[in-house]
Amino acid sequence: METPPRRRTLTEEDYYAGVLSRDIAVLPRALTLVESTRGEHQRLAEQVVTRLLPHTGNSIRVGITGPPGVGKSTFIESLGLHLVKSGRKVAVLAVDPSSGVSGGSILGDKTRMARLSAEASAFIRPSPSAGTLGGVARKTRETMLICEAAGFEIVLVETVGVGQSETMVAEMTDCFLALMMPGAGDELQGIKRGLLELVDVIAVNKADGDNQTAAEVAARQLERMLGLLTSKTGDVPAVVTCSAREHRNIDTVWEAVENRYESIKASGDLANRRCRQNTRWMWRIVDEQIRQAVTDHPAVAEIRTELEEQVLNGTLAPEAAARHIVEASGLRVCTT
Amino acid sequence: METPPRRRTLTEEDYYAGVLSRDIAVLPRALTLVESTRGEHQRLAEQVVTRLLPHTGNSIRVGITGPPGVGKSTFIESLGLHLVKSGRKVAVLAVDPSSGVSGGSILGDKTRMARLSAEASAFIRPSPSAGTLGGVARKTRETMLICEAAGFEIVLVETVGVGQSETMVAEMTDCFLALMMPGAGDELQGIKRGLLELVDVIAVNKADGDNQTAAEVAARQLERMLGLLTSKTGDVPAVVTCSAREHRNIDTVWEAVENRYESIKASGDLANRRCRQNTRWMWRIVDEQIRQAVTDHPAVAEIRTELEEQVLNGTLAPEAAARHIVEASGLRVCTT
Repeated sequence: METPPRRRTLTEEDYYAGVLSRDIAVLPRALTLVESTRGEHQRLAEQVVTRLLPHTGNSIRVGITGPPGVGKSTFIESLGLHLVKSGRKVAVLAVDPSSGVSGGSILGDKTRMARLSAEASAFIRPSPSAGTLGGVARKTRETMLICEAAGFEIVLVETVGVGQSETMVAEMTDCFLALMMPGAGDELQGIKRGLLELVDVIAVNKADGDNQTAAEVAARQLERMLGLLTSKTGDVPAVVTCSAREHRNIDTVWEAVENRYESIKASGDLANRRCRQNTRWMWRIVDEQIRQAVTDHPAVAEIRTELEEQVLNGTLAPEAAARHIVEASGLRVCTT
Repeated sequence: METPPRRRTLTEEDYYAGVLSRDIAVLPRALTLVESTRGEHQRLAEQVVTRLLPHTGNSIRVGITGPPGVGKSTFIESLGLHLVKSGRKVAVLAVDPSSGVSGGSILGDKTRMARLSAEASAFIRPSPSAGTLGGVARKTRETMLICEAAGFEIVLVETVGVGQSETMVAEMTDCFLALMMPGAGDELQGIKRGLLELVDVIAVNKADGDNQTAAEVAARQLERMLGLLTSKTGDVPAVVTCSAREHRNIDTVWEAVENRYESIKASGDLANRRCRQNTRWMWRIVDEQIRQAVTDHPAVAEIRTELEEQVLNGTLAPEAAARHIVEASGLRVCTT
């Protein structure tokens, strides 16, 4: 038996060509490069992504969220298999700011989605575990671009309902799908008020067995509610029921998502939306990085705990505390 | 006839004592000081506000929003008169980021609310017209503190549904009240999906004449919808109808607001909420000021338009553009 060759360092050209040809030896390494926190890797990643940019943008980008227990993994696997079987290449990515901390709910995707990950046309990548929510989301977005350049036609970006993670996923996708549980009793289970603003399609999962009727009732309630909220000219989110466990109506869910995508594409909204997303994303990263730089600044680090305490005690106005922090950071601020 | 004495420059002590004694010659000048963009005024204002802090926090802080045409001014005047008549001292403030630009919808409050402004126990202050939304909101918040120190027991902070203005008002108040119109047809008029997250009380206004039934129907629909959305443990927003024009049910609206206030006060949530608001407010101001400092930085100003264009064209990744901006700003950023 021969000694396996030492893993060669890849050049920008290697990454570029490897991603474009969907080389399964290169693709995961390109994503690892993107996720690396080392400066030299980041610079190389930026060059690779910039070079790949003209080959991106050709996928349907779908954000997916849902409360714990809704059966998200089962659903995504079922949807992924449906898409793969209809001849599409599917990438499953995740934004989970908690995954680095706790072992997280989205880690270990390959185990979770064993059948899907065995498919040659499917690619599953767990959430990057290092960094802030913004950092995690940024890396997932770049991963999405690389997957698009590699020819994946559908990118599913999964998230959990933690903090701003749903908003960030909505800002990098074309359609946002929320999974819900059938109501137990009078209430809709797991739909947060703030989520209504983001969502394009709602799928009430677990519409099987004893839950069938409850799921249908929940869907009709939701539909009626969303109809009341949205003006005649606006888009009313679609509401459907499905059973991921029994692979039922998964095609209906996808149809609703794809209809939404096709309609915003046909109206020209897709291009506009992505342009807006890109500039907003740029400033979002700027904001996060400068905030980080300010809080990490030694002079700020020295005073911030005490300032925060004084603000909490009510002995210092937040406006005054803010001024102390900005001054300590050394940034020159125009006082208007 | 004697020459009127020259207006004397007030000292920190003058402002402090004048506000505390609700001296009507000093109070408006204290607010003008807070709104001033001159550095020396801002420093003095900060000292005055800091000194007054121990005398603040004793009012019920109520945010009020509603779509154009809902009769917001009429409602606020009616509510103000109701409160004044029941022996309360009421301040009406406004956050309107558009008022500086267009003449705005909240400018000219005294004319709008002629009867209320004639009341000795009422104080009406239009929206500060200079600065960004954050700047406008900041000044309104400090105005609120000064009004509290001056003994006003209820502060109504009015806003328009522009951009983030509703969120900012919700972040400086204890209760958030949304006015709505009776539905014309099947739809609820003027309630945005995102607003549902902020609101504590909804009042369907114009429940008079031919609209009476429509208002009741809208209120029941809303109530049912909100009941579906919120979990058993969470607070379901109260929904009421009223007619500001005919001064009907204004007391019911206020009761709903005050009930909400009393309940969060009794549970200890009020103190927690205000503490959270204060620290969040501090960081919000920091974020806004450092962003401003970065965008105003000559090296950033020089490159940002071109970077934004490249991002829009799809020739530069937002992540790379963000890095150029942060680097140009001269802030040292940790690359994780």
